[in-house]
Amino acid sequence: MSATTLSHFAVHTMTNKPWSLARCCDAYARAGFGGISVWRNVIEPIGVAEAARIVRSSGLKVPALVRGGFFPALDSTTRDKAIDENKRCIDEAAAIGAEMVVLVVGAVVGMPLAEARKQVAEGIGRCLDHAEKSRVKLAIEPLHPMYAADRSCINRMREARLVCEELRSPWLGIACDVYHVWWDPDLADEIALAGAQQTLFGFHVCDWRPNTRDLLNDRGLMGEGCIDIKTIRSWVERAGFNGLNEVEVFSTERWALDQDGYLRQIADACARHV
Amino acid sequence: MSATTLSHFAVHTMTNKPWSLARCCDAYARAGFGGISVWRNVIEPIGVAEAARIVRSSGLKVPALVRGGFFPALDSTTRDKAIDENKRCIDEAAAIGAEMVVLVVGAVVGMPLAEARKQVAEGIGRCLDHAEKSRVKLAIEPLHPMYAADRSCINRMREARLVCEELRSPWLGIACDVYHVWWDPDLADEIALAGAQQTLFGFHVCDWRPNTRDLLNDRGLMGEGCIDIKTIRSWVERAGFNGLNEVEVFSTERWALDQDGYLRQIADACARHV
Repeated sequence: MSATTLSHFAVHTMTNKPWSLARCCDAYARAGFGGISVWRNVIEPIGVAEAARIVRSSGLKVPALVRGGFFPALDSTTRDKAIDENKRCIDEAAAIGAEMVVLVVGAVVGMPLAEARKQVAEGIGRCLDHAEKSRVKLAIEPLHPMYAADRSCINRMREARLVCEELRSPWLGIACDVYHVWWDPDLADEIALAGAQQTLFGFHVCDWRPNTRDLLNDRGLMGEGCIDIKTIRSWVERAGFNGLNEVEVFSTERWALDQDGYLRQIADACARHV
Repeated sequence: MSATTLSHFAVHTMTNKPWSLARCCDAYARAGFGGISVWRNVIEPIGVAEAARIVRSSGLKVPALVRGGFFPALDSTTRDKAIDENKRCIDEAAAIGAEMVVLVVGAVVGMPLAEARKQVAEGIGRCLDHAEKSRVKLAIEPLHPMYAADRSCINRMREARLVCEELRSPWLGIACDVYHVWWDPDLADEIALAGAQQTLFGFHVCDWRPNTRDLLNDRGLMGEGCIDIKTIRSWVERAGFNGLNEVEVFSTERWALDQDGYLRQIADACARHV
């Protein structure tokens, strides 16, 4: 596969945060992107039935609904609530025709990361039947270690793999986002392993800006940072991945721009830097 | 060893950035701290001879001069300059009686991390004779992955260990800073290995604030973040480490405070949370 055409790319709605779901669908389809990954915040104001109608009529593929997860908690009531919420997530994904739910697995300040990872595996395990029945995959997204305090106790491909190996389901895999894992010395090996284990469900692209100004919302557009995206993409494809490349950029700076012009920049960055 | 008394702690001068070296020495000694780790910025305005006089007359131990490193570069002239600079660093460390030079090893935007790590090993190798002659140890400090773009291509204890294993010198080891490595699932094992290999030269403490506001200067004081410092310290001591616990907090918020009152907070945090 060569991802030189936009049809091999999907855009995450959060990339164009100022836009509604309808506006995203319309703009992405007209620009020639092949897909859209839908964040729940754009479903919330219109409801899932209307969201499903908009997405399905756009003709776009839907790699992912974003996001489920946040399994660990200090008490079982909160953990149970997280399971319910994740099942609702799976239902929404099925409704809009999303291939997978991306899981930001969670972490709790004061809880040892090893314990949090145990609770994550347990929580995912409790959702797998529902995922299978709904024909929706679950993809663990390892998050950068700078999010280990309260967002994700899984910070490398390796820890995501260990959960997959423990639960062994064709419905459970990994979403590999270059932003989170580019620094990992084991990245090439882990991508190859995920390919061999058929758990490489998603591939997200953006860039890491040197002198990043904010831990959450200062991602770079592909090509303006230090990540060798083309090389990582070659590993992912050698591992057998043939899904869409998902563009996921959180950027306060970019959200302030005219989003139509910005989408043209995104399309250009996809063609030149991925 | 029990680090419940301040004499088992050293403070990095950068922790009290507004203070001169003389002010730091005076305040740390009067407060009962056992040592001081000296950043080069406080030496620069007074010169190394005067700095050595001040530090030596304080009676404080000096675990570290901070910092050498920054070895990788795109051309050999720049790499040669880095070697010269690191040798000057070693000379300064010897002059002030510092046990080690802490190495922030460097990284170059656009250079693959694996290549940068090769250049780091080569650069350190070129400094080891000078270190041995000067009786000054070199300690690789793995930096958090969020600094992989341009500050350090060594982001886990493991990669620091690989360089130590390659160069095998009693003058080369590792400075373990909880801020950088607390999230690493291999941390306990790597600390034990460093102990067995006698490369555990330094132990730095501070804390990771949930909702960190800045990538550089928003570290927490011990106890106000999510790092289980007591547990990590128990691993370090089980591995045979018996040096001073070094307090190293970069905090714009704290630098704006009255530093005398802040130092009392630091002393309290050492007693209660390390």
